[in-house]
Amino acid sequence: MIQTKDDFFALVNEIQSSAYYKEPLAFGIARVDRGQKNPEKILQATFPFINWKENYGSAAIFQKALHETGKLLNDESEAVYDVTKNFVAEALSYCNPWIEEAIGDAHKNVQVIKYLSTLDEEELANFKIVFLFEDAAPKSVEAVYLKLYALSTGKAALRSVNLNGAFGILHNVAWSGTTPIELDWLRENELELKMSGQYPVIDSVDKFPRFLQHIIPADNTRILDAAKVRMGAQLAAGTTVMPGASYINFNAGTLGPVMVEGRISSSAVVGKGSDVGGGASILGVLSGTSGNPISIGENCLLGANSVTGIPLGNGCIVDAGIAVLEGTKFFMSEADYEKIKEANPEWNAEYKEFFKGRELAGLSGLHFRQDSTSGQMKVFRSNKEVKLNEELH
Amino acid sequence: MIQTKDDFFALVNEIQSSAYYKEPLAFGIARVDRGQKNPEKILQATFPFINWKENYGSAAIFQKALHETGKLLNDESEAVYDVTKNFVAEALSYCNPWIEEAIGDAHKNVQVIKYLSTLDEEELANFKIVFLFEDAAPKSVEAVYLKLYALSTGKAALRSVNLNGAFGILHNVAWSGTTPIELDWLRENELELKMSGQYPVIDSVDKFPRFLQHIIPADNTRILDAAKVRMGAQLAAGTTVMPGASYINFNAGTLGPVMVEGRISSSAVVGKGSDVGGGASILGVLSGTSGNPISIGENCLLGANSVTGIPLGNGCIVDAGIAVLEGTKFFMSEADYEKIKEANPEWNAEYKEFFKGRELAGLSGLHFRQDSTSGQMKVFRSNKEVKLNEELH
Amino acid sequence: MIQTKDDFFALVNEIQSSAYYKEPLAFGIARVDRGQKNPEKILQATFPFINWKENYGSAAIFQKALHETGKLLNDESEAVYDVTKNFVAEALSYCNPWIEEAIGDAHKNVQVIKYLSTLDEEELANFKIVFLFEDAAPKSVEAVYLKLYALSTGKAALRSVNLNGAFGILHNVAWSGTTPIELDWLRENELELKMSGQYPVIDSVDKFPRFLQHIIPADNTRILDAAKVRMGAQLAAGTTVMPGASYINFNAGTLGPVMVEGRISSSAVVGKGSDVGGGASILGVLSGTSGNPISIGENCLLGANSVTGIPLGNGCIVDAGIAVLEGTKFFMSEADYEKIKEANPEWNAEYKEFFKGRELAGLSGLHFRQDSTSGQMKVFRSNKEVKLNEELH
Repeated sequence: MIQTKDDFFALVNEIQSSAYYKEPLAFGIARVDRGQKNPEKILQATFPFINWKENYGSAAIFQKALHETGKLLNDESEAVYDVTKNFVAEALSYCNPWIEEAIGDAHKNVQVIKYLSTLDEEELANFKIVFLFEDAAPKSVEAVYLKLYALSTGKAALRSVNLNGAFGILHNVAWSGTTPIELDWLRENELELKMSGQYPVIDSVDKFPRFLQHIIPADNTRILDAAKVRMGAQLAAGTTVMPGASYINFNAGTLGPVMVEGRISSSAVVGKGSDVGGGASILGVLSGTSGNPISIGENCLLGANSVTGIPLGNGCIVDAGIAVLEGTKFFMSEADYEKIKEANPEWNAEYKEFFKGRELAGLSGLHFRQDSTSGQMKVFRSNKEVKLNEELH
Repeated sequence: MIQTKDDFFALVNEIQSSAYYKEPLAFGIARVDRGQKNPEKILQATFPFINWKENYGSAAIFQKALHETGKLLNDESEAVYDVTKNFVAEALSYCNPWIEEAIGDAHKNVQVIKYLSTLDEEELANFKIVFLFEDAAPKSVEAVYLKLYALSTGKAALRSVNLNGAFGILHNVAWSGTTPIELDWLRENELELKMSGQYPVIDSVDKFPRFLQHIIPADNTRILDAAKVRMGAQLAAGTTVMPGASYINFNAGTLGPVMVEGRISSSAVVGKGSDVGGGASILGVLSGTSGNPISIGENCLLGANSVTGIPLGNGCIVDAGIAVLEGTKFFMSEADYEKIKEANPEWNAEYKEFFKGRELAGLSGLHFRQDSTSGQMKVFRSNKEVKLNEELH
Repeated sequence: MIQTKDDFFALVNEIQSSAYYKEPLAFGIARVDRGQKNPEKILQATFPFINWKENYGSAAIFQKALHETGKLLNDESEAVYDVTKNFVAEALSYCNPWIEEAIGDAHKNVQVIKYLSTLDEEELANFKIVFLFEDAAPKSVEAVYLKLYALSTGKAALRSVNLNGAFGILHNVAWSGTTPIELDWLRENELELKMSGQYPVIDSVDKFPRFLQHIIPADNTRILDAAKVRMGAQLAAGTTVMPGASYINFNAGTLGPVMVEGRISSSAVVGKGSDVGGGASILGVLSGTSGNPISIGENCLLGANSVTGIPLGNGCIVDAGIAVLEGTKFFMSEADYEKIKEANPEWNAEYKEFFKGRELAGLSGLHFRQDSTSGQMKVFRSNKEVKLNEELH
């Protein structure tokens, strides 16, 4: 058993220069939900805490404990191990100098080991230790969840994580509160469950859980309906998600306080101070756009029931009810052209009467409107400042 | 007690040629939820299994058991009976040759009887046996539920079932998970429930339960929010219902894999491969249209926040944010007229510059747009192929 | 102990002329949810019954009981007191003549006292007695809830109650069914809750609870998704709230049977017989408008995905998919001008070809459309009658 912190650091150094050690991109210990019918099927992984490019001391300790118990196998892009009594005992003996101060926010990995040390072998069967060594396409449910946690906790930036093939790895299950249920198990037991009045309350059927099932938002963040935010979304502090037509998909979200009453589709990102109006749609890469992820800058206003299919810079306004798509043609006056150029010095397009949406992508200070007397779509230099209601964010 | 399968078949033949037997359109045994205040009020009927134009052997057996126990009354379009110990004993004695093999997917009606045979009289009071003899307007809560099950299990086609007056028959109740609660009971007990901290969690107040409360969808079907699909809807395998602005009412739904991010109103039907974009509205017969149910064909794209008030054929596109209504006038060029005629050989309208929406109803290969420079609504021959993201369906 | 009703009335008279008595605007006794971490933090107040400009006899009795137990302090705009065993005993002794007949709908305040008299001191710690003496900005969570109840029970008219600063007073909490949970408590216990599989189901994170958590709607009112209506909303009998893109914020709602498939933002009010179509947005004062609350009159139709940013009179139609904003210019023919003037005799604008939305605010019988051949926004005298489907309301 390691007795002092110095000994601990020495041990970590020793491990890190050993042949078996491999520095992880991320790691964590998860409680898993297994299939009711097929217990080898992992339906969900719940991490009390994840490590993302950090806490390499704990990583070393965990790898040594796996190595000592004869399980370490670090030659893939990721690895998932059972948590055994021996592993826990080993890890605990190395963590010993930190045990006492591992409370509250301090030494979360040690807290996890401490907790696991109170469990018996049967209870430990619900836990897995997960390592990602590189950001490759995930190969296990546990790896997908670790990446979704990285996004939703904000430890990894939106769009920065490789989730290729995640849809194929996750199982489509019925969610009853926090519990995933295999659809096949439900089918096999439907008759008895219904006859006995024990049929479970099903909240959704999906491959992904809900964000609020795993993530505690900041004190000034509001999500009025848990169904509206998928796990893997990222919500910066001060974001409000209203329950009307809103939705935030995984790998999408906000970078600061944002009012969300519309849809932020997969891989779309909205900057601070922006207002996604009621029913406004930001098109995503999974369906709707040609595959280019859309960023909305800061202090933008997407009016109620508008549709935005191009990236916007800062301070843009899309009027209520209109669609700004890549192919939409917008009339621009010469005077507005000059002002828009001034607001976007890097923009070097020549003046012309009509610009397509895709030619205006990413510019700041634009105001998109439909002329109510002619029906023509127009773009102006915006002269309104968008400000969120401070009471609400 | 019937001993052999041959004896069973002989018995069924005998019953079917007897005077009391009447071939049913549908039948099943349901567990019912009774009013907390008025137990005679049936609030919900949960069928572990329904029979729709099938399993006439079981129907015969059940009718004989009812006849023998002095209850059969088949002179109306439907009949609902209490399930008694005697009925169960009779039915069980006829089913005897099938008892052993009635497991899994086999002989569900026998499984139901087997289960009921383990219950005492008090527990049996929660069950009803329901017969529909013709597709008349339903007269009981149980009959309405049997028809909703027929739609939602896909045993009956959408719009094929007579549900006239169903709104008047179902009771408006508070739903707490799978439990319906009489509003009057809640009122009478509000004070005590609130004072004691026992006030129930109310998920909705409606005459209809949620689809997922009764139906297990296919493995590749997703419903991200149970509130979005009403019981009586029909979702073909591979359909995804997102949680933003989507909704599928009863007697509405999909005929194949469909991405649903918008509203499929009552009696609207969407064909396979189509994409109902975020916030897109398909108008329904209950409010919004003049009463003609709308079908959307295969591989159509209804853009985000579009509104569709006419039926569409296959391969149509409605651009984001526009409304295609019966009275909307669309400009069509002569060249597009020729191409649209070619794609729709049965269409024999003369060429003209402007067609109203209702004149284009049901045609395939149309692309509806609003010209962004003139504001004019136009219809083209579509030249894009709509394809769902295979990973998602 | 008061023995007769005459003695009771005499006592009330005596109290009401005493120096310590102050006539309240509103009062009630609430069960409160306290912070898991900080029990002094009130997270929610649940009123079995509220008094709003009524039941001054009970108010007098309660004030005397507070006075006698040395707690009365009526010098602020509101007061919140602990409920003690002594207070309950005093109040009960004054109410004595009514105890027996205090059942069902009769003498709800006496019923509350009767119930409290069965509790011990520890249980009483979950209750507060709340008085509002004037409609000032609320200072306590309990006062905010009392006002939200006044709105949601319909005892106070929408927009008639001072809720200034309410957002600052309510705590942002995680809601698990009817239970509010401090976010900080959740953070502190996240590791253990997740490791033990006891992490709660979180339905929302918000300062406000849901309407259906506190209010029992009328028998012919439907709310298909509890997440769609915030506490503090007001729904007249016969209102239906569909689960698609709809939402009703606090201090907003309906004045009669209304079909709600769209958003009724904070302080917006919709008159009887109106239809807020799928995805339709009525802009609110918190974000979207310049701060003028919007009223929609009776028998109006807001088409699917329309946006309404001006008040409307009776019998108006906003076509599907269009936006009627303060600055939108609408063409009006002279013939329609005459008919609109006839329908709105108080309107005395001179004729002109184009009216801005704000110039048409509050007029009845308007039909707003976008001309599909020219893209021009136009306003007509409406000639269709809007009627809700009687079966549905």
